[in-house]
Amino acid sequence: MKTRYGIEDEAFIRGDVPMTKREIRAMLMVQAKLSPSDWVLDIGAGTGSITIEAALAVPEGHVYAVERFHKGIVLIQENCKKFGLTNVSIIEAKAPDGLADLPALDVIFVGGSGGALPGILDQAERLLKPGGRCILTSVTVETTAKVTEELRHRPFTYEGFQMQVNRLRKAGSYHLLDPLSPITIITAVKNKE
Amino acid sequence: MKTRYGIEDEAFIRGDVPMTKREIRAMLMVQAKLSPSDWVLDIGAGTGSITIEAALAVPEGHVYAVERFHKGIVLIQENCKKFGLTNVSIIEAKAPDGLADLPALDVIFVGGSGGALPGILDQAERLLKPGGRCILTSVTVETTAKVTEELRHRPFTYEGFQMQVNRLRKAGSYHLLDPLSPITIITAVKNKE
Amino acid sequence: MKTRYGIEDEAFIRGDVPMTKREIRAMLMVQAKLSPSDWVLDIGAGTGSITIEAALAVPEGHVYAVERFHKGIVLIQENCKKFGLTNVSIIEAKAPDGLADLPALDVIFVGGSGGALPGILDQAERLLKPGGRCILTSVTVETTAKVTEELRHRPFTYEGFQMQVNRLRKAGSYHLLDPLSPITIITAVKNKE
Amino acid sequence: MKTRYGIEDEAFIRGDVPMTKREIRAMLMVQAKLSPSDWVLDIGAGTGSITIEAALAVPEGHVYAVERFHKGIVLIQENCKKFGLTNVSIIEAKAPDGLADLPALDVIFVGGSGGALPGILDQAERLLKPGGRCILTSVTVETTAKVTEELRHRPFTYEGFQMQVNRLRKAGSYHLLDPLSPITIITAVKNKE
Repeated sequence: MKTRYGIEDEAFIRGDVPMTKREIRAMLMVQAKLSPSDWVLDIGAGTGSITIEAALAVPEGHVYAVERFHKGIVLIQENCKKFGLTNVSIIEAKAPDGLADLPALDVIFVGGSGGALPGILDQAERLLKPGGRCILTSVTVETTAKVTEELRHRPFTYEGFQMQVNRLRKAGSYHLLDPLSPITIITAVKNKE
Repeated sequence: MKTRYGIEDEAFIRGDVPMTKREIRAMLMVQAKLSPSDWVLDIGAGTGSITIEAALAVPEGHVYAVERFHKGIVLIQENCKKFGLTNVSIIEAKAPDGLADLPALDVIFVGGSGGALPGILDQAERLLKPGGRCILTSVTVETTAKVTEELRHRPFTYEGFQMQVNRLRKAGSYHLLDPLSPITIITAVKNKE
Repeated sequence: MKTRYGIEDEAFIRGDVPMTKREIRAMLMVQAKLSPSDWVLDIGAGTGSITIEAALAVPEGHVYAVERFHKGIVLIQENCKKFGLTNVSIIEAKAPDGLADLPALDVIFVGGSGGALPGILDQAERLLKPGGRCILTSVTVETTAKVTEELRHRPFTYEGFQMQVNRLRKAGSYHLLDPLSPITIITAVKNKE
Repeated sequence: MKTRYGIEDEAFIRGDVPMTKREIRAMLMVQAKLSPSDWVLDIGAGTGSITIEAALAVPEGHVYAVERFHKGIVLIQENCKKFGLTNVSIIEAKAPDGLADLPALDVIFVGGSGGALPGILDQAERLLKPGGRCILTSVTVETTAKVTEELRHRPFTYEGFQMQVNRLRKAGSYHLLDPLSPITIITAVKNKE
């Protein structure tokens, strides 16, 4: 079976927790360049939608999902059950807490840093294998600048882009454009020495 | 080996032929939901960048690349050679010409219709298996409207979105935003009856 | 008193009728290049927000607001009263109906053509003075293409652009980006002969 | 005579100095809400395009243009001459230098802070009349965040948005979308006490 990115938004149980939309989630997966045996960490997992996509892509690997809010933890559990996943471990903690005992990792998604970006990147540096990838997303102007400021002094090579999606929505025989919130995706690869 | 979408733009031989940029190309692949044994058609293949990404994703399948300009044909050949691909057939023709003898297909990319959209969609209808996917891209306001107009009366279920990418570009310790041209991606799934 | 474009959205009485947002409305005014004695027509006036901005900018001129829905007519009346305007005439009609008796005009805004674009442009051609300006907005992919198709064969010189605004919204000490729907603005100047 | 914002880019003498594009320049003018007798400061004036637009809008007022590069100073002089302006003073300095002797101001444009934002905002606070407006533009992710960080602790009330323009460009009977670089415009009004 071949993994295909871009699960429909409606496929996830999500309550009222905000969720990374399909097109953006798929792009995060593209940036991650996952291999089937990769070990992955999803920080600020929210509903678990990124965790689920990643776990489906690493059937021989594992995904750790870290989430601080209990409401999110329950959703991640329910979504893992819905998608029949057994390669996910859920950690209820506010990162960088909860990351001390993790093994070496191939990919780390940082979706919600809640102001703790330096500590999270310290852990990312420690946990990532050389050549490992950190995919950081930002939906605020401040976080984008904090990410670039932090990465400048760390052993990562990075690139990034802002992405905006306007969905076509039928209105009679016309199509309006429904805008999604723009997001900035920064991909930082840990230097190999 | 696991296929990973989003080959760097610089990896392709491209001369002065315009090429679908990495982020957008990766999104087209996401929309295609390819399986390893899929049979694929790339209409208006240009440099072959989409053909290459698709061919790498269907190691047990095949990709037909149709391109009208001889300059493009040469580039596609060179890129196939560079990526070591043996599952690509190149057809020098202006679609819908050149499509008569193709087998049943799983996915069709329509990148450049050159005004021949109705004829191309006639062929897409004929060639696609039920549930097969047609990924249409548009970089002009007129083509987007033509696609929606054509699809309305055909046995496809479709959705679409406009996508715009602004790449971060370093300028000292700052990052400018370099805009890529926006593109509209419409995904049409052939109805199963 | 100097007219300043970009009245706050909250300053208008609007009920549940969709309204052109401040940044976009201001850009329409910029495109219109109004002079104080200009005579103006606003087709598909909706809440009257464009009518109001224009009427304030043409104190020695006049604005005709055409709107098909009675709900809109009431809002336009209320907004004119609120802004103390006496240089606005309101016409309850579905354009191009209702335009037969208008005088020569300097500027025409076409916000909602409801499929009647050819008839509206016939009237615009007839009513506009040479060098007069027609500002056409589109929020659907189909309308944009229809506008370019219609203008190609008419005695207008035109240019246009798509505009997207993401408003900064405070969230604690951070700022999210709230996207407005993108809009295409096409400005067509009637040829002088 | 009525001022109309949005002078065509080609109307300015500009050499190879980057210039704020017409649509964005017009939006800056909208944000400034200039009155004919306003006194204005343009920091990082570049080619002088904003200075010119503002000077035309304040025939009874005055514009100070501050620019650090001599190449820019010459362009501003040439453009003032071309537009016949006599209400512009040009200051060759790197702001906040050169601002010590200015009178009380109604509007300040901050286009290029070159890392000197805190010092520039100190001067803006000092120079602006209560209710005066500071229009800050940013084309980098870092500057946007610096602006919001600085404004948070100062006696300004502010709002902002990111704006992206894709210009329609004719290609045969089709229209491509040529993207301009996105810009963030933040408008800070000095509190009245």
